Amino acid sequence: MTTDQIPTRGGTMDGQHPEAAAALSGGAAGPEALRPLIADVLAGLAAGAARRGGPIPAGTPEQLAAQVREALAGAHGPAALGALAEVLAHGAADPADPACAAHLHCPPLAVAVAADLAVSALNPSQDSWDQAPAATALESELLAEMAELVGFDPARAAGVLTTGGTESNLMGLMLARDRRLGPDVELNGLPAGVRPRILASEAAHFSVQRAAALLGLGERAVRTVPVDRDLRMDAGALADAFVEAGWEGATPIAVVATAGTTDTGAIDPLPEIADLAARHGTWLHVDAAYGGGALLSRRLAPLLDGLDRADSVSLDWHKLGWQPAATGVFLAREARTYASLARRAVYLNPADDEAAGYPSLLGQSLRTTRRPDAFKLAVTLRVLGRDGLGALVDRCHLAARQAAQLVRAAPELELHCDPVLTAVVFRYAVPDPADSDRVNAELRRHLLRTGRAVVGRTELPGHGPGRVRLKLTLLNPHTTQEQLAALLRAVVEAGASTRDGGKDPKTGERARPPH
Amino acid sequence: MTTDQIPTRGGTMDGQHPEAAAALSGGAAGPEALRPLIADVLAGLAAGAARRGGPIPAGTPEQLAAQVREALAGAHGPAALGALAEVLAHGAADPADPACAAHLHCPPLAVAVAADLAVSALNPSQDSWDQAPAATALESELLAEMAELVGFDPARAAGVLTTGGTESNLMGLMLARDRRLGPDVELNGLPAGVRPRILASEAAHFSVQRAAALLGLGERAVRTVPVDRDLRMDAGALADAFVEAGWEGATPIAVVATAGTTDTGAIDPLPEIADLAARHGTWLHVDAAYGGGALLSRRLAPLLDGLDRADSVSLDWHKLGWQPAATGVFLAREARTYASLARRAVYLNPADDEAAGYPSLLGQSLRTTRRPDAFKLAVTLRVLGRDGLGALVDRCHLAARQAAQLVRAAPELELHCDPVLTAVVFRYAVPDPADSDRVNAELRRHLLRTGRAVVGRTELPGHGPGRVRLKLTLLNPHTTQEQLAALLRAVVEAGASTRDGGKDPKTGERARPPH
Repeated sequence: MTTDQIPTRGGTMDGQHPEAAAALSGGAAGPEALRPLIADVLAGLAAGAARRGGPIPAGTPEQLAAQVREALAGAHGPAALGALAEVLAHGAADPADPACAAHLHCPPLAVAVAADLAVSALNPSQDSWDQAPAATALESELLAEMAELVGFDPARAAGVLTTGGTESNLMGLMLARDRRLGPDVELNGLPAGVRPRILASEAAHFSVQRAAALLGLGERAVRTVPVDRDLRMDAGALADAFVEAGWEGATPIAVVATAGTTDTGAIDPLPEIADLAARHGTWLHVDAAYGGGALLSRRLAPLLDGLDRADSVSLDWHKLGWQPAATGVFLAREARTYASLARRAVYLNPADDEAAGYPSLLGQSLRTTRRPDAFKLAVTLRVLGRDGLGALVDRCHLAARQAAQLVRAAPELELHCDPVLTAVVFRYAVPDPADSDRVNAELRRHLLRTGRAVVGRTELPGHGPGRVRLKLTLLNPHTTQEQLAALLRAVVEAGASTRDGGKDPKTGERARPPH
Repeated sequence: MTTDQIPTRGGTMDGQHPEAAAALSGGAAGPEALRPLIADVLAGLAAGAARRGGPIPAGTPEQLAAQVREALAGAHGPAALGALAEVLAHGAADPADPACAAHLHCPPLAVAVAADLAVSALNPSQDSWDQAPAATALESELLAEMAELVGFDPARAAGVLTTGGTESNLMGLMLARDRRLGPDVELNGLPAGVRPRILASEAAHFSVQRAAALLGLGERAVRTVPVDRDLRMDAGALADAFVEAGWEGATPIAVVATAGTTDTGAIDPLPEIADLAARHGTWLHVDAAYGGGALLSRRLAPLLDGLDRADSVSLDWHKLGWQPAATGVFLAREARTYASLARRAVYLNPADDEAAGYPSLLGQSLRTTRRPDAFKLAVTLRVLGRDGLGALVDRCHLAARQAAQLVRAAPELELHCDPVLTAVVFRYAVPDPADSDRVNAELRRHLLRTGRAVVGRTELPGHGPGRVRLKLTLLNPHTTQEQLAALLRAVVEAGASTRDGGKDPKTGERARPPH
């Protein structure tokens, strides 16, 4: 690449209206400056979706990357906006398509996306009141509502919006570390023999290990507790892990329970885990990034009983909440445990300003500049209501149960376990374990390459071959039973084609071997 | 608060068109679903800006918070979207208003905001290729352009988009820690006597201390190096700090240089610092979150000579780059030093998918779910061109020089130092140091409370009274000299009023005493 890839001259700045390209989104003139540009974006999105015509464009990653590079090199001037929006839409894996169902990657509600536009246009930043007067108040209100939702006392709880479960889990473990080992701990200065330990299930999110590494504890500080077949933590094994830590002289600083594992949506037995954590005086962090969405459904909310006993909780409304990324929420049950981040920056939250009534959220977040991600969620909760959102959760849950039924009914497919929330884990059945792994991995890539479907892939805990599974994470509330059936038919056809060495199931012709 | 504050029922879900509120932003139908909602948002933004009528609404934080609470409690159904957009706009500190000039809080370009809408609507996530095919390629291209911009070899560099300088600084220090102390280090298991040390100037951003605490090194691991009057690091003092570390048996793991301090925009002497870091084999991280914007200006770019010798760099295009938050960029000069985050998650980047050509950005980021913040910047660079953006940087730099001239010319005001980039540090001159601090702090709150201006406030390094200063951070390229003069007149009037005990300078009436 050469420097010329950053165009030195745009179109508009040199054209007839040199100020038009430099128009701002804020102020009284902002809305009118935005209007024609947004029309360009919507036209680009529509054209890109039409050109894609499915859940993902057909082609290899390198073919798609070449298209993007070409578009970037050719785009300049005012037309670049619509042209690149079209490229982004064409080259999307669009979760609004019922055949795009791989990950905890939701199709956002239009109302949430529209609300987020207001945030971008005004650009408030939550690190000081005088960058975000209304947004500061709004986040505080929304957090109180979130505290109430998980069963915390809003008058005692504290929290913050985050970039997602990974940041929220990091915050929970940071607070746990600092409560047990002291604030602003110098880990390298601890007495020899102090070995902090984190207990989490085998199916806990990998961000637990990441957090341990970042926090200077090392990934080996995380001891994994076995799970049952549905990937729920075994509470008896957690009790054993505490005993083992005692024998080994290790210091359990946190238990991480998962309410909604990434693959099966399994919810660890929260009441038993809370009892154990309480007995050992250990911080309990509950990663409810996925399962927290069930709180919106009156039918499913009881699955999370015990959540109110957590010391800290992760919630992600860009998963089962239909918000565009990011809308993470971190909550601590007791504000007094939230001291690690308290910080005075003379230019952001001087003491006399706080004494004069100017509140500061700086000490709640790991970030400094921070977009008010609370706004879109607050709007969505008011436009749809909790029950309206709960109805969407119930629809996705129903879709998962229907999909599981369809998998059970298909002789070529094998269901791993009943869905708990909205995810279905299964495989294309091949007798030989190693062959099963190869076929399932390849059929998934075949579906991607042909643009037919975006299906997830994972591996069950354990060792050895035979653990690769496919996964549908159903987050589109408008998906019909017919669309689910078509999606599973596509899986079966791709499986047959892959097993048979890449013949196209329709034409019988031999395709390029799957790679 | 009660649970009723989350409305259990929205309007639309129960009304005539139960599906309308649950419309998605993606797919072929998304653009048309968005259109009327965006019209509501733009109307709300316009109404809010008109009602505000200035840089910030008049009133106390508590009065504004009460308005927000009332609006949240009263909003439900489809009308909530426009109503809450109006509340957010009314209660904004709007950087598009020339009298809002406190922080590194830029007014976004309308084109960047419109581009970001495409991202929200499609909701790609950068943690796996199959959630973001085009966005994955686009981020890689943009990062190569960014590497080129700072003088790195794009073929050797690596990087990622971040939430801002705080996250970028954390990443730089994490890589530095792990390079020196080993990957996945258990700090509590280090041999006794290993004391990691970070060297940064007194004027470095507080996120350096925050990162040290998060990384388990403790804030005391950061040794501050003295600065000159303009807040530039003293290179001789840095040399001394290395000698001192040697005497004390401490291990310098990183030097943090600042290219654009938050207050004065001072740029540390990068070539001398790079020489020292190289001599001691110490990682050099350059925090160019603010000053990196100068790279766009051919006139100012030479101020950052030496940046290409950094091991890692922070850039923030939501500062001097007119992007909505967040558009942080972290870059490492050598991709091979970027190993700390390498991670395989069986459901995101299995080895056989990577071997089959499916690229993964998971190992580049501290986050998992990650919005493609690169898109808006890539679009902006193409619509305006680098020179178009550079012209905006030059305008803000000129505004700062004009403001400094106006401050010099005003007998009531005292300039601290000549502006380097776009920030001007000064004070309302009061002979007694303690009184100076009180008057300057109070006059700033007076301007906020009356809705006249949003001016920054900081403290110079050191101890004792007399260090409080006011600050204009000029990031609005459309601000005129007349508007700057009016802003400074408002400061002078508020100063006189505050010094005289709160008399209104226009009416001569005694206002409520400033608090």
